[in-house]
Amino acid sequence: MDGKKLNSWKQQRKERRAMLSSNQLFEELLSGNSVALSSAITLIESKKASDQEEAQKLIEKCLRIDNNESIRVGITGVPGVGKSTFIESFGLHLIKLGHRVAVLAVDPTSEKSGGSILGDKTRMNELSQQPNAFIRPSAAGKSLGGVARKTRETIILCEAAGYDYILVETVGVGQSETMVHSMVDFFLLLMLSGAGDELQGIKRGIMEMADALIITKADGDNLVAAQKARIQYKNAMQLFPKNENGWLPRTMITSALENSNMEMVYDTIASFQNSTKINGHFKHKRENQDIYWLQEAITEQLLNDFYQNQKVVKLLGELKQKVLNKTCSPFNAADLLLYTYKSIE
Amino acid sequence: MDGKKLNSWKQQRKERRAMLSSNQLFEELLSGNSVALSSAITLIESKKASDQEEAQKLIEKCLRIDNNESIRVGITGVPGVGKSTFIESFGLHLIKLGHRVAVLAVDPTSEKSGGSILGDKTRMNELSQQPNAFIRPSAAGKSLGGVARKTRETIILCEAAGYDYILVETVGVGQSETMVHSMVDFFLLLMLSGAGDELQGIKRGIMEMADALIITKADGDNLVAAQKARIQYKNAMQLFPKNENGWLPRTMITSALENSNMEMVYDTIASFQNSTKINGHFKHKRENQDIYWLQEAITEQLLNDFYQNQKVVKLLGELKQKVLNKTCSPFNAADLLLYTYKSIE
Repeated sequence: MDGKKLNSWKQQRKERRAMLSSNQLFEELLSGNSVALSSAITLIESKKASDQEEAQKLIEKCLRIDNNESIRVGITGVPGVGKSTFIESFGLHLIKLGHRVAVLAVDPTSEKSGGSILGDKTRMNELSQQPNAFIRPSAAGKSLGGVARKTRETIILCEAAGYDYILVETVGVGQSETMVHSMVDFFLLLMLSGAGDELQGIKRGIMEMADALIITKADGDNLVAAQKARIQYKNAMQLFPKNENGWLPRTMITSALENSNMEMVYDTIASFQNSTKINGHFKHKRENQDIYWLQEAITEQLLNDFYQNQKVVKLLGELKQKVLNKTCSPFNAADLLLYTYKSIE
Repeated sequence: MDGKKLNSWKQQRKERRAMLSSNQLFEELLSGNSVALSSAITLIESKKASDQEEAQKLIEKCLRIDNNESIRVGITGVPGVGKSTFIESFGLHLIKLGHRVAVLAVDPTSEKSGGSILGDKTRMNELSQQPNAFIRPSAAGKSLGGVARKTRETIILCEAAGYDYILVETVGVGQSETMVHSMVDFFLLLMLSGAGDELQGIKRGIMEMADALIITKADGDNLVAAQKARIQYKNAMQLFPKNENGWLPRTMITSALENSNMEMVYDTIASFQNSTKINGHFKHKRENQDIYWLQEAITEQLLNDFYQNQKVVKLLGELKQKVLNKTCSPFNAADLLLYTYKSIE
């Protein structure tokens, strides 16, 4: 098939899948069918109003499936830290232990394409061939809120399809770490050793979000430096304010090359699950996250509506300039903009 | 005077002051008159529409006064860390060097009263008696946004009145540190030594905001512990991601009792001013803060309007419960609320 034919075939397949009703998809999802899962995700990503309606019905069905045994793990780190090789190595460990693993990516800059799917599967070659692994690239979306919504909904679908270990990888662009942090149970920060005080470009505040910090590539000549870095980070993280849930963040070293310490990462997360389930914080956090996303979605849509208003757009540039020229106070400028916005509704 | 008479006299005085036009107040402010400054602040805090109009005129006049030589320093730390004694000691040091010092407080929980003014002045007994010091307690306000606006506007008034060293103290309740951080040039975090890993109740993320961290009460039996704590924090802060402005956060010990190291704190802030003025980040940060407050004010007012809407209020409780019961997704709940909100406007 040439490129044109392939695209046309893909389009047809997509439409056929999207035509499955939410009832049919739900039944197939429950049986753990990964093709149905792909179709369901395509459905929630569709921009067609009729698809969106079916998608919402499907989501509400899936929400009622008990997912208390699932764990959602966020993974971040700068490019080059080895996120994909870590996930490949850790994912295979999970499969061996009998888990069903879903790997989702959050990259607000990516536009979804066949290329990026292929890219993801190539990066995790062995994992992608496992029947109990499901790998899905980032949802496309103009806004971070749109990507957030699709990723959250995809997690619900994966859990309904029986994937109990959800890994959400993020590239760390813009606010994407904060977003992923707000939709997972456990947040992993991958770091390189020996990158000095420049700290590899991670953003301020990310370290304090981490439930565990892992120094990657701890092998060969790099092992000693990694061990040393671990001690430094361990000491530093002890000075952070304690988490409300009583969890003390852990620091570890791993090597994806040597497949080392994957059981330690697993045990750490299992220990987190146990202790936060006992003290009630596991459920509490998920509930808080639900309310958080309700509020975030409201805020985003109110702001979108405001900033897309033509009279606001026209006035905003002018007033920003006045604020910078110190001929108008920021608060007064806000008052004027809000007055304009309201007067034309 | 008994309490009733005193209140009536205060009320009359307030009204008389508020009747001064923005032009008159502005002229008196420029001459550095601290009574005019108090009246101007009272004017911006007034809820009367006519006062607000005059207040905005006054603010816009004051905005045009060059304030490039002023420095705004935020100071936070948990109760008991010694913020007031530090400010007393540091403020007197600044006065000795020829600065004119304004001390503002941000406490979103306080309701302004004669009592709290008295309280503040008693806490800083010697400083409050200096002709070149101006101490003002927290503005009252139901919302953090309201307090933010009044505090920002008060800073502008103080600078117009020739106060070149502005100290903004916060008690660290709710989001008040983040708010103060977003309106100052330099952010100081005061800490106690030897409080172990509980970290004295400071909130996560605050340490990474600090431009300098000061271990207070470094005197007598506590000196060695303070020195040790300083080293620990120094090591920890070196691991934080670098600031965009190139500034490496400093760690210091001070004793307000012995008045020690106040010149070191001063020199540190002076060094920050110099280096960020040379690389352009000083001006850049103030401009970003102006735009930030413009956006914050818009967001706050849009959200207020939404959450105060009666139909929204009624539906919100119901939908939150559905979200927690997993019979509605957070995003779908948001869609329903926004639809309801818009349909009645």
